[in-house]
Amino acid sequence: MRMYDIILKKRQGLELSTEEINFFIRGYTAGEIPDYQAAALLMAIFFQGLNFRETADLTVAMAGSGDQVDLSGIPGCKVDKHSTGGVGDKTTLVLAPLVAAAGVPVAKMSGRGLGHTGGTVDKLESIPGFKVNLSPDDFIRQVREIGVAIVAQTGNLVPADKKLYALRDVTATVDSIPLIASSVMSKKIAAGADAIVLDVKTGNGAFMRSVEDASALARTMVAIGRLAGKKVVALISDMEQPLGFAAGNALEVREAIETLSGRGPSDLRELCLLLGSHMLVLAGVTSRVEDGIKLLTGLLERGHALAKFREMVQAQGGDPRVVDEPDRLPEALQKEQVAAQENGFVEAIHAEMIGRAAMLLGAGRKTREDTIDPAVGVVVHKKVGDRVGRGDALATLHINSRENLALVRQLVAGAFHLSTVAPPARELVYSVIGYGDNDTDINQ
Amino acid sequence: MRMYDIILKKRQGLELSTEEINFFIRGYTAGEIPDYQAAALLMAIFFQGLNFRETADLTVAMAGSGDQVDLSGIPGCKVDKHSTGGVGDKTTLVLAPLVAAAGVPVAKMSGRGLGHTGGTVDKLESIPGFKVNLSPDDFIRQVREIGVAIVAQTGNLVPADKKLYALRDVTATVDSIPLIASSVMSKKIAAGADAIVLDVKTGNGAFMRSVEDASALARTMVAIGRLAGKKVVALISDMEQPLGFAAGNALEVREAIETLSGRGPSDLRELCLLLGSHMLVLAGVTSRVEDGIKLLTGLLERGHALAKFREMVQAQGGDPRVVDEPDRLPEALQKEQVAAQENGFVEAIHAEMIGRAAMLLGAGRKTREDTIDPAVGVVVHKKVGDRVGRGDALATLHINSRENLALVRQLVAGAFHLSTVAPPARELVYSVIGYGDNDTDINQ
Repeated sequence: MRMYDIILKKRQGLELSTEEINFFIRGYTAGEIPDYQAAALLMAIFFQGLNFRETADLTVAMAGSGDQVDLSGIPGCKVDKHSTGGVGDKTTLVLAPLVAAAGVPVAKMSGRGLGHTGGTVDKLESIPGFKVNLSPDDFIRQVREIGVAIVAQTGNLVPADKKLYALRDVTATVDSIPLIASSVMSKKIAAGADAIVLDVKTGNGAFMRSVEDASALARTMVAIGRLAGKKVVALISDMEQPLGFAAGNALEVREAIETLSGRGPSDLRELCLLLGSHMLVLAGVTSRVEDGIKLLTGLLERGHALAKFREMVQAQGGDPRVVDEPDRLPEALQKEQVAAQENGFVEAIHAEMIGRAAMLLGAGRKTREDTIDPAVGVVVHKKVGDRVGRGDALATLHINSRENLALVRQLVAGAFHLSTVAPPARELVYSVIGYGDNDTDINQ
Repeated sequence: MRMYDIILKKRQGLELSTEEINFFIRGYTAGEIPDYQAAALLMAIFFQGLNFRETADLTVAMAGSGDQVDLSGIPGCKVDKHSTGGVGDKTTLVLAPLVAAAGVPVAKMSGRGLGHTGGTVDKLESIPGFKVNLSPDDFIRQVREIGVAIVAQTGNLVPADKKLYALRDVTATVDSIPLIASSVMSKKIAAGADAIVLDVKTGNGAFMRSVEDASALARTMVAIGRLAGKKVVALISDMEQPLGFAAGNALEVREAIETLSGRGPSDLRELCLLLGSHMLVLAGVTSRVEDGIKLLTGLLERGHALAKFREMVQAQGGDPRVVDEPDRLPEALQKEQVAAQENGFVEAIHAEMIGRAAMLLGAGRKTREDTIDPAVGVVVHKKVGDRVGRGDALATLHINSRENLALVRQLVAGAFHLSTVAPPARELVYSVIGYGDNDTDINQ
């Protein structure tokens, strides 16, 4: 078998065999296939695509390219959740304890990554003392004992994806649905999940700008997950404005705590209830989504979800008083409001601009070497549909450094689009993919 | 300017600017742009194409990536000829002295390359004593004195093409018309030509299998040549059977001498007269092709072309007696005939199989390290349309080693397709591109 022939075959639009895909992933991971041949194949895939079978094979080959997490020591169906990423997305902080409180074990490995704010583990590290580096044994033991743990990725998980992603990033081949889908799903499979709920974001703050693109990605991920023997459901959710109010690490932990206390922003609460109830359905705890929502709502309101979060913080070395006294979280030295220049209704909030502002304040990493400031970020006070008066605070900037501040102000002010009439209400979730048979038609 | 953006732009089907193309060629030649980014761009070009303007810019950028031959010391219009390659193509050996005898200076640099037989300089080296490595000064001086010289490429000509071709060869991006066209034309421009006659082959023995593909390539080369300020004409010629009878280095020199003597295979003679007369038209020696054919026919028949060849052989240190006594050329130890197994008419001769047979006998190079045996090769005795009787010799193998012999026999026998009825006569030249304005419409 020769890499040349595999490139040529895909270039001609032919279907690659399982053996050919395995040959590529094995050879590329081992450094036997050079970057330039991989780059040519990726560009050919960009143009010719991969069908569900090829994408599933690619996913499984990538998942098997390194270590794989063994969660068999934890009884029950392990359900993972993945979001394609968005601004202000702190759902994992809420979902993990919430679903665990309902009896579904959550053994969550999370990356740090680059982005507007830190990853889930970066956010948790804003809690004084919180340790995200557990040994595999301690990780499993904690989930067995209290039902939930969120740790930083360890081991050599999916090295093929690391190499391929780095290559895609410099060869303009990131935005290919089969390549995105296999990247996401290979990591979920290697992380040991039995079932996966996917939160596929769409809108100006998301990678997939249109509902159609997001749906195509979701269908691909559902199909390849099933081909790999996993239960998978995908929600297409709105990212035309930030989720909740806060973008920033400690700021988001605070908002998650509010939500776990039965309060919190309504969109965040609603999305967590929806995602969580689908997780319960996949885990077999409830058979209908409506039942799951009822169950989870009760857990929020009776304080069980917050209690589970407190247990997790304590188990991982964090200061549990933070849960009841969020002022113990790191706080920025300065706060500054961004005010509305005119009257009107909020028509849209450009989520990506809010995200960039948060990153410029120090909440995220531009390069792997950057350190995160847990205290800083942006909190918006108005959401789409809200009425605004001239001079009203649109957002508060949480500032530790005046560097970039002029640009940050511009970005945040510019993110808000006002109109003279109230805009129609936005959907939070556009559709759910994965329960119908049509959603996983192998013949795309 | 970033290479990433250039890849993305072409991937999206947008037109690259002159500056972007120059940035790519300069950076890639200097080793500042890595192979994997170049590979991604090449594959994007394969799918999205390049228009004539982009292809011309690429060609000029490549031509300028290394040394450029300065032929300004030679008076008159320097006309070069290029063939896209085929089996038994010894036209340069005939054309160079023939056109020089008509008063057009021929300063020809030729590569060795890989292929079924050696390149033109390899073929000339089968003449005892013939030197193909002349200093630039001696090269120019010889053309000024006797009107013709054929030498091996020296200097660092078109390094961008060397690098890009090597990359295309391992990334399945060779067969892209703009990439082929720019590769060919950049070398011709760097070699100092004022005008170029292109012999674009089509058929089973050629890279371009169909007349349509060959015409598309020809139109591209004519257009980009003109954009680069050169006079260019392209002939689309048949390569559904070997050109002439011989495939092998000394064997082809012998056939070229026969043709220069006014004899030789009729297809080779006809093609040389056609290509040569277009060279005369471009050089301004004659205004009509018909006049050129008459002039060149006279030079062949009166012995002037052969005399010019003899002069060149002598000037370059070769044994001039070879010209009148071709038996002085290297000869294989053994000859073996391949006989027809049935009666019929030759319907087709698979040129590529004859070429592979010649290479297996030692006439060509598989890798740059291989040495060529000048004596060996294949001489066919029947051409398309000829009547064949069972047992008639179809071809003679000229052998110095029995290695591969069984396979060679099979290839040569299998190359001949016989039919019970006489096939229609074949065209030798399908069309000529480059005189009409429509041929060079920049808007493709």
